[in-house]
Amino acid sequence: MPQPYSLLFCHAAQVLTLAGGPSDKPLTGADLSEWRIIEHGYVACLGDTIAAVGPMGELDAGRIGPETRIVDVSGRVLMPGLVECHTHLVFGGNRADEFQRKLQGESYLDILASGGGILSTVRKTRAATDEELLQSALHHLEGFRRYGITTLEAKSGYGLDAETELRLVHVAQEAGRRQPVRVVPTFLGAHVPGPEYKGRPAEYLDMLAADVLPQLDPAAVPFVDIFCEEGAFSVADSRRYLQRARELGFGLKIHAEQLHELGGCQMAAGLGAVSVDHCDYLTPAGAAEVAAAGQGRTVAVLLPLVPLYLRQEKYAPGRQFIEAGLPVALSTDFNPGSCPSKNLWLALQVACLKMGLTPREALAAVTLNAAWAIGQQASCGSLEPGKRADLLVLHVPDYRELPYWLGENPVAQVVIGGELL
Amino acid sequence: MPQPYSLLFCHAAQVLTLAGGPSDKPLTGADLSEWRIIEHGYVACLGDTIAAVGPMGELDAGRIGPETRIVDVSGRVLMPGLVECHTHLVFGGNRADEFQRKLQGESYLDILASGGGILSTVRKTRAATDEELLQSALHHLEGFRRYGITTLEAKSGYGLDAETELRLVHVAQEAGRRQPVRVVPTFLGAHVPGPEYKGRPAEYLDMLAADVLPQLDPAAVPFVDIFCEEGAFSVADSRRYLQRARELGFGLKIHAEQLHELGGCQMAAGLGAVSVDHCDYLTPAGAAEVAAAGQGRTVAVLLPLVPLYLRQEKYAPGRQFIEAGLPVALSTDFNPGSCPSKNLWLALQVACLKMGLTPREALAAVTLNAAWAIGQQASCGSLEPGKRADLLVLHVPDYRELPYWLGENPVAQVVIGGELL
Ligand SMILES: [Zn+2]
Ligand SMILES: [Zn+2]
Repeated sequence: MPQPYSLLFCHAAQVLTLAGGPSDKPLTGADLSEWRIIEHGYVACLGDTIAAVGPMGELDAGRIGPETRIVDVSGRVLMPGLVECHTHLVFGGNRADEFQRKLQGESYLDILASGGGILSTVRKTRAATDEELLQSALHHLEGFRRYGITTLEAKSGYGLDAETELRLVHVAQEAGRRQPVRVVPTFLGAHVPGPEYKGRPAEYLDMLAADVLPQLDPAAVPFVDIFCEEGAFSVADSRRYLQRARELGFGLKIHAEQLHELGGCQMAAGLGAVSVDHCDYLTPAGAAEVAAAGQGRTVAVLLPLVPLYLRQEKYAPGRQFIEAGLPVALSTDFNPGSCPSKNLWLALQVACLKMGLTPREALAAVTLNAAWAIGQQASCGSLEPGKRADLLVLHVPDYRELPYWLGENPVAQVVIGGELL
Repeated sequence: MPQPYSLLFCHAAQVLTLAGGPSDKPLTGADLSEWRIIEHGYVACLGDTIAAVGPMGELDAGRIGPETRIVDVSGRVLMPGLVECHTHLVFGGNRADEFQRKLQGESYLDILASGGGILSTVRKTRAATDEELLQSALHHLEGFRRYGITTLEAKSGYGLDAETELRLVHVAQEAGRRQPVRVVPTFLGAHVPGPEYKGRPAEYLDMLAADVLPQLDPAAVPFVDIFCEEGAFSVADSRRYLQRARELGFGLKIHAEQLHELGGCQMAAGLGAVSVDHCDYLTPAGAAEVAAAGQGRTVAVLLPLVPLYLRQEKYAPGRQFIEAGLPVALSTDFNPGSCPSKNLWLALQVACLKMGLTPREALAAVTLNAAWAIGQQASCGSLEPGKRADLLVLHVPDYRELPYWLGENPVAQVVIGGELL
């Protein structure tokens, strides 16, 4: 006798399964648009796991028991929980004052000279207690959850010394234990050189590699990330640091080609990085090199709200990346300086408007491909039997309405691990 | 004995009063930024009206009685309810499919040739029953209310024949009666020439002026609007139509300078229009002409989400309009074609990023100046004794965080007419 389902969503107008593509790599090219949509469908859960997905006509009535909670979602879309694959979740304070000064015309250099910019966040972060940082992270996680985010990557990077960077990783882990959104921590001690290492970026990286990385367990903190950019770390220094991280068993990520074309994306893909992030200055030819170097497994994480917020109007050519065979994901880049937004739906919409993604491509980029970008593709990102029961009920009846209603949060209900929240 | 307050919000981190400027015209220039903020303040209501606003130290404890409902809003901002001064609220269907086709590269002309564009909404609107149109309008009003909109202008304009245009006005009025957001109807029969009047725009306007305007009561439908643009109505035809509307006692509005610089804004301001809307192609010199022609009372209603959604990247130079002495307001332009967004906060943020408004200017542009743009300045748009008790409690402690947290809805509680919703 098969066990009765614990939770059953039935009569969905559309079930966006995100299933049907290759199982051994993220989606790109035509696969990004050809995943399966089931009209008039159902999703059934058993405990924290998806048990079955299909059209209503194939629902096994024998598995509906008295203990099955049945939710009628007529006229609504069902889809996997969103995967937010690039955030700087844990930091002290905010920079609203600095943003106002920028709007009033002050230059970034003036703001830096008066103690603003990233180092102001570093000061506030170092000065904050663990409990303050935790409460702030929990507040933001609750905000993300309202948008339907069920798995979220959280980077360190506002401590910039050994002790604080480790604290930030621990706060992210603790935030993951305190509420239902799954948190995947990434170590970004190499955000910029710490203020104590001004002008000595290589020494700062040596310190991180010698003193901090060995204290982290790759099973709990799966990724090491670095910001490869003028004013941060060179391609050569980044390569050496990422190689050492790889030797220690970490997966690799890189912030690259945000403001200049330096070749950081190609370098990291060649080392097997799981993602290369920003890519606003990566050309279509460079994208083909990344696709080849990464053997189709390195995901380009595009962050369309950042150029909007920085008023730079230079957006990664996502459409051409896809045509070049590079898998793409989308994220907010939530952080206190260049993009304090948790609205991943807005990022999806701006990616359609500014990067030329279609609604189907953009949806894959915030679910299955985002899961690949943080190594979570086995457990989330699509509605398939055996995956964790993380899913969303949306207010709309058709996926094409998702980029259409600009600025709206379409989420009606969030389910994480089989629990209706 | 003064009557005890019915509702009291106390200990607000900041009360954004929007008070302190000239009372006889909308705000522009320095006045747009110099309205009064009270730190650690209160707002007291008596029935549906604001009774007192001030710092906590000046609160009259003698007016707190057993019947006073006291709401502690420590750490939060209090501000007037948002005024949404330009929407096309009532229409049939949506154009999500058409938006997807545009994202996939189809040209607007191809879409028009296959029956898309505004006339597809006209077909669906004519085919819809009053009840269907009403339910759709109520759905959208509920969405607007979640963003803190407490007064909203609603245009007709998707009927394009006498009968349907009158139905649309009546549906907007009925929607206003069915829920708490105050609805101010505007007659936009002159959106484009009706399909039965193809190539004969002047005859269409004559029909509206002869057959429809006399059936409307300016006390209930205070404004007549027209779309002055290539493909819609010329400046000369618009002038003649607006003059006739003025003779019948209507206030005037115009959609102008959206895609070309034709002089529609100057013409309408010269006729005493309460607002000129879009203005993306209005130059700073033109803005000074509008300010002079309108004697400082004509408001430029800027719609920053429209160029974003249409991917045109030509934004009204709001900063220079203000410096030229032209009052500005902000709106979503909610409509099914060029901007299906109800998120006025996003419009405010994009106005800061793309039009150079400061947070204080943008806040005045969605409250007091928006009230002026629809003739409602006597009853809403600021927190002042005697005005209607329409106000918002926000999740943030400082107004500078409003444009900062991109894409967020900061509204914690909405009060309309002294009722906590
Ligand atoms: Zn980042
Ligand atoms: Zn309009």
